[in-house]
Parts: sequence; C-alpha cells; structure tokens
Amino acid sequence: MPYIPLEEHLPGITGLLEYRKDTAEPIRNLTQVLLRGPSTLSEAERELIATVVSNGNACRFCTNAHTAAADKLLGECDTTKAVKENISTAPVSEKMKSLLTIASQVQQSGKAVTEHSIQQAKQEGATDLEIHDTVLIAALFCLYNRYVDGLSTVTPTDPEFYHGLAMRIAKGYQRLPQGYDHLKKQ
Amino acid sequence: MPYIPLEEHLPGITGLLEYRKDTAEPIRNLTQVLLRGPSTLSEAERELIATVVSNGNACRFCTNAHTAAADKLLGECDTTKAVKENISTAPVSEKMKSLLTIASQVQQSGKAVTEHSIQQAKQEGATDLEIHDTVLIAALFCLYNRYVDGLSTVTPTDPEFYHGLAMRIAKGYQRLPQGYDHLKKQ
Repeated sequence: MPYIPLEEHLPGITGLLEYRKDTAEPIRNLTQVLLRGPSTLSEAERELIATVVSNGNACRFCTNAHTAAADKLLGECDTTKAVKENISTAPVSEKMKSLLTIASQVQQSGKAVTEHSIQQAKQEGATDLEIHDTVLIAALFCLYNRYVDGLSTVTPTDPEFYHGLAMRIAKGYQRLPQGYDHLKKQ
Repeated sequence: MPYIPLEEHLPGITGLLEYRKDTAEPIRNLTQVLLRGPSTLSEAERELIATVVSNGNACRFCTNAHTAAADKLLGECDTTKAVKENISTAPVSEKMKSLLTIASQVQQSGKAVTEHSIQQAKQEGATDLEIHDTVLIAALFCLYNRYVDGLSTVTPTDPEFYHGLAMRIAKGYQRLPQGYDHLKKQ
C-alpha cells in the first residue's frame, strides 16, 4: 500500500505523476527528450538502458514497464532477458555493451563510472553525446526507481498491464492533452 | 578531467547544463518547482534535504553547492554541518529530522524507506505532500549526483566559488534569460 494517498487505479509511477502535476510535467518532458527525442541511439537501445538500471535497482514496476517497452520496440523478448542476466553475452552491439556497462556503474554510484569503461565505449565508436545521454538516462532512472519504491507504490502482477503501458510509452512520455482520452485505450 | 568535452570555466553541474540545453531545461524546471516553488517546507529545509542526499552520495560538488545555499538561506553554517554529521542530534525540528531520515533512506535505495520512518514523519506532523516532496527531492539529487560524478566533472576547491554559486541558486534554478548576463556576476 502506498505511503501517501494515490488513485487506486493508477499503480507505480502513473499515480505519482497524477499526484503532483507540476513536478510531473518536467519529469515527463525530460524523459520525452532523452528517450524519444532525436538521437543516434535507437528508442529500443534507450529503453534497454532504462531496463538495466531499473533491474539493478530492483524496481519491479519500472523493470517490467521498460522491459515491455523495449520488447515492443524490438519486436522480440530475448534481448531484454539477456541484458538483465549478463550484458557481456547479450545479443547487442559491442558499443551497446559498453554503454550498458556505464549505465550499470551509474546505477551503483556516479563515482563507480571508470575511465576504463569510458575509453572502452569510445573505442567501440560511442560519441560524447551518446556517453552523456547514457549517464543521464541512467541517472534519471535512479530518480524514477527511488520515486516509485520510496513511496511504496503498487506493482501490478498481471503482464497485460505492462503490455498496455508499453503501447502507450512506445508512443511517448508526454501527457495526452485533454480531449484525447480515447487514445489512452490503445 | 571530465569524460566529455565541457566548457572549462563551468565546473560541476554548470557545464553539463550548458552541454545539452534541451535536457537542462526540464531539469532546471523540476528543481525550481520542487526547491523554490510554494511549499510548507522552507527553501532552507529543502536545501538541507539536497545537502544530506548529496553528502550521502559523496558528491563533493553538489554537497558544497547545497551546503552553501542552505547556509545562505539560514544565515549560519552550524545546521548544515550538524545534519551531515548526525541527523538525530542536529538543531532542526523533529519533523525535519524524520524527513531527513527518509531522504537518507531514499539515497540508499527506494526500497530502503521504511514504514516506520514514514509513520514517524506523520506523527511529527509531516503532511503527505511534504513526504512526497522529500522523496522526490532526494530522488532528484540522486540524479544530479550521478550526472555530476558519472561524467567526472570538475570540483572547484575554492570556497568562494560555492559562495558565488549559492548567491545565484538562492534566487532560483531557472536559466537567466539572454540579456541578463550582468546578473550572473551578483
């Protein structure tokens, strides 16, 4: 049961984003720019970063949600399973392995990011902006995971919930304007 | 030396907020609403939350910056020193002790926040919104600390730098509009 009164039909982050809308708006905007804005990293690759960090923080709601989003964008479920088990043997590019390693270090602590892992990413062709974005996406999910679990929000157990949520977040993180409620059902 | 090329005269978070302005804007907006917007917690109390979390994450840049901001808002330097050493004996209200304890738990992990610490805060008169904001401010500084240290930004050692920065952030976190550059010197 959540530590503060949240709408019962809105589990995980969804109830928090309704609880205080003036803080939700910049959180949504930051997530939209970072995960759906123009980037040389695909949307699926950025969702993999979110998945690895949420999994490292043992935040079940966020792990389930971003696993489902990455699965939907990739069209398969094997890659998310593999990166959560072992980045080094997962079926992703060497560049992505190095960026996911950096993301895992950020999950532990900013200070855990090593010069070696940064050099590895650069050798595998990662740009400065890709390294920047990887660190900031990882840091953002450290915020989300703490927000969701720190207030003890509800984690649905039905996979269908996350499939529905993935359909929505694959399209973007910004709030649907009023009058577009029919889209929420998609 | 930072892992990505940042402007040399802009240490810590300041260079990162210039490096990618479209992600900086929602980060600044979120911080402004949470730390300077209307609240039953004073601006100094909210800076104490930022200080305790940054100190827990051993992020020297953020700890120095928010210690200086809290000192400026409080008009003394004893309280920040005390909360970083021991929350339970610091010269703050019992309600603030309970909120700073929650913030310290969030710094470790969202799952580290206990039902007991939430009940303690409620018994000391903390409102649901104050508990929400404490958790979100703590989560936001877990983002900042990882962003600043994860990219190995420069930490100035001169206390004067942080006094100058505190003068600016005491006024707010939003970017000064173009044409107001003269205010940056204040």
